[in-house]
Amino acid sequence: MPLPELLDHLKKTAALSQVAGLISWDQEAMMPKAGAAQRAEQAGALASVIHARNADPRIGEWVHGIDQSQLSDFDRRNVNEAKRSYDRATKIPPRLAEESARASSEGQRIWAQARAEKKFAGFVPALKRNIALKREAAACLAEDGADLYDCLLDEYEPGAKSADLFPLLESLRPPLVALREKIAGKAKPTPLTGHFPADQQLALAKRIAARIGYDFDAGRIDTVVHPFCSGNGGDVRITTRTDEADPLNCLYSTIHEVGHALYAQGAPDPYLPAADYCSMGVHESQSRFWENQIARSRLFADWLFPAMKEAFSDMNLDGPDALFAAVNRVETGFIRTEADEVHYNLHILLRFELERELIAGGLEAQDLEEAWNQRFERDFGIAVPDASLGVLQDVHWSLGLFGYFPTYSLGNIYAACLDRAMLKDLPGRDDMVRMAETQPILDWMREKIHIRGRVLSAPALIEEATGEKPTAAPLVSYLEAKFGALYDI
Amino acid sequence: MPLPELLDHLKKTAALSQVAGLISWDQEAMMPKAGAAQRAEQAGALASVIHARNADPRIGEWVHGIDQSQLSDFDRRNVNEAKRSYDRATKIPPRLAEESARASSEGQRIWAQARAEKKFAGFVPALKRNIALKREAAACLAEDGADLYDCLLDEYEPGAKSADLFPLLESLRPPLVALREKIAGKAKPTPLTGHFPADQQLALAKRIAARIGYDFDAGRIDTVVHPFCSGNGGDVRITTRTDEADPLNCLYSTIHEVGHALYAQGAPDPYLPAADYCSMGVHESQSRFWENQIARSRLFADWLFPAMKEAFSDMNLDGPDALFAAVNRVETGFIRTEADEVHYNLHILLRFELERELIAGGLEAQDLEEAWNQRFERDFGIAVPDASLGVLQDVHWSLGLFGYFPTYSLGNIYAACLDRAMLKDLPGRDDMVRMAETQPILDWMREKIHIRGRVLSAPALIEEATGEKPTAAPLVSYLEAKFGALYDI
Repeated sequence: MPLPELLDHLKKTAALSQVAGLISWDQEAMMPKAGAAQRAEQAGALASVIHARNADPRIGEWVHGIDQSQLSDFDRRNVNEAKRSYDRATKIPPRLAEESARASSEGQRIWAQARAEKKFAGFVPALKRNIALKREAAACLAEDGADLYDCLLDEYEPGAKSADLFPLLESLRPPLVALREKIAGKAKPTPLTGHFPADQQLALAKRIAARIGYDFDAGRIDTVVHPFCSGNGGDVRITTRTDEADPLNCLYSTIHEVGHALYAQGAPDPYLPAADYCSMGVHESQSRFWENQIARSRLFADWLFPAMKEAFSDMNLDGPDALFAAVNRVETGFIRTEADEVHYNLHILLRFELERELIAGGLEAQDLEEAWNQRFERDFGIAVPDASLGVLQDVHWSLGLFGYFPTYSLGNIYAACLDRAMLKDLPGRDDMVRMAETQPILDWMREKIHIRGRVLSAPALIEEATGEKPTAAPLVSYLEAKFGALYDI
Repeated sequence: MPLPELLDHLKKTAALSQVAGLISWDQEAMMPKAGAAQRAEQAGALASVIHARNADPRIGEWVHGIDQSQLSDFDRRNVNEAKRSYDRATKIPPRLAEESARASSEGQRIWAQARAEKKFAGFVPALKRNIALKREAAACLAEDGADLYDCLLDEYEPGAKSADLFPLLESLRPPLVALREKIAGKAKPTPLTGHFPADQQLALAKRIAARIGYDFDAGRIDTVVHPFCSGNGGDVRITTRTDEADPLNCLYSTIHEVGHALYAQGAPDPYLPAADYCSMGVHESQSRFWENQIARSRLFADWLFPAMKEAFSDMNLDGPDALFAAVNRVETGFIRTEADEVHYNLHILLRFELERELIAGGLEAQDLEEAWNQRFERDFGIAVPDASLGVLQDVHWSLGLFGYFPTYSLGNIYAACLDRAMLKDLPGRDDMVRMAETQPILDWMREKIHIRGRVLSAPALIEEATGEKPTAAPLVSYLEAKFGALYDI
């Protein structure tokens, strides 16, 4: 059986992909500015090499020559993932791949300018082009009668179908809108104010990261413009940023990235595709779980408040209750990335329904701004003042990323499912969170999610971990309970 | 003509080699320790890709199909360098390349242990193996009747022949031994003592680096165990280290690496082989020139002494004369990397003659320690107390690096040749050095050396820059003048 040859090929390709990830991290965190032109050449050359390896005709032969009935679940998944990336690499013609890469890079530039000028019209041609190219790519990948949007979604959420996802996500809208409306009439809690030196923020962020299980022997933290997590196995790096007027940005973005990092550090193998993360939705569930269910809980404030008092001499809040309220302030706003837990998924639902229609053809690019503004007002009750606060706020579509947005909400849904199941399995969890002694929480996540890799589909993995098929109910209950109590509803 | 295809291929390979350099920098400067195993896989996978590109049979066809008489000198060199790396990649069988890589990595481990135990015998089998493999590789590369050692030397010093190099380097021995002996009887200057905070050292090192022309927009400085310079074009990174009892190590190692970095930042193209550095000897001439001819001069002490006074409150020396004397203390010691300018080349001559004999077969590995100790005493007048201070001190041979050592002395010889010529061309140079306003010095070096790339051989480049064939005379005069004055000889 040609399995060893195939696995060796996959392993080397994965090692090269890790290098691609590393030079991308370096570009954001370390590279001097005059290095940009060479870095683009380097990344391009490496991407060509990786593409050629993914499209290597021997993969087709190896996969064909393997008797899958003889394989473990893990190796069957390795073979299927090899086939999946081989199909992606071979079904999309080089001309289309190159044009898409160029359209993505040019699209981002044009989008940035349009956003700065607050003029959607300037972005329309680039958006049209991205949609056309993505539809073409989806058509190359589509099996008989497959939905084009699903072919794009599949890249981020393997095997997911929007026919399942749409009702799941839509079921969030009524309760979230109701909750938003109830909160809108209530008094807002006192926000955190004071002066928070950057060094102290970073020191506290590192302390929290280590405390919740981030292994600094297998990672590092640096400062960048837009925080992210990169790498896997023994080298998983996170990044953060600081604002001396607002330490919560640094602390919670660090916790979010640590959530991703714990998943990556816990992978059962750093190279094989069956050991890779299950899906973007599951990845996001890990970051959201630590950020929201754990670190924005009233219990965690019992540990975090004194830790912040120790780190910052100038801070207006007087206790854990006030901190809990401040880190959970609800405010209707225009920007997704600044949204609270009540509003966040409404931002995603808006994008998900719009991008489905864009790919299906029911909505034309030039009509997107109007559609956005109408539906935004429907869900949020306020009118979008300009495109930079509306349809132009996110980079995704300018890069050709369609099918990515719903994974954010899937992450929130899965995080709440996992949270509910874990509470049953770990009766002492409240005390663990209150004292920030969270090792058993991490151990549970390692066993249920991290070491399972990509052997199962995301819904199957969540069902295995929780004993129930994933639904939006746990997320809705969690939000209603938390914000109901906070806002006295 | 297939020139554009060839150049495009070379450019992409160079971009991948830059990535290999970057991940090696990262390994020393940034990588968390648990990343080591994956990094080895990554580096190995990337090395295979680069090797396959260098051995691509199309290179042979392209080179064959190009009419060299139609080419500029620059492109002729590109073609010849492509042929040279193609020959290296194809003439050495994969089995030998793999075995050499393994022997190198195992050799280093065995060497480190033997050095720690101060037992040369423990290293002998690994050394034997490295010598045998290098002889085998050299035999694969050798054209009719070529000297095996020269085939190894050629990798570092393209086109150099040891029949020319040996007399050139040997001509240093009598005057250096004479100088060493004269100085031995003289009183030593006061060494620098005090407490020198690491942060202040780094700040001053950066100030000096920027002052002598290092472009921080195209580079960065980090701290590592063993300083080095990495990258080229728009991304040239240097590294240093600090010892709070001795700021000279940090300052002069930084200046040394800046010398390398200026050369790399000044390359006329970041990808093409004809634009690459001329040879290791010429590279070393750039680091040595800035470190020794400029920064260890009496003139530079006029600027450096007040700068150090400003940076360090606790420092024993009372003026530029004392600083000049302290940075040029001559002391007979066992370790090459700690050697002063008078002793340094004697260390190299010893290694050069021994490694030539090892490769030629006139000296057996097991007899190396005895040969080392005898010849060391001949040149240095003191007996080696143990192998860690003698034959086991350098890592090179454990890695299979034979032919590398002489390039250090070539660097010193070339630096002195360039220094002499530059003094004629720039009558105001003394004031430039005294005020550390060295832009015209860098401009001279850019024009004469940096932008010339690899179009000429090293001796031809030095002759073009200086108007004279390179000899050891300028180095000997420079050392006799400087140390003669300092030690009142």
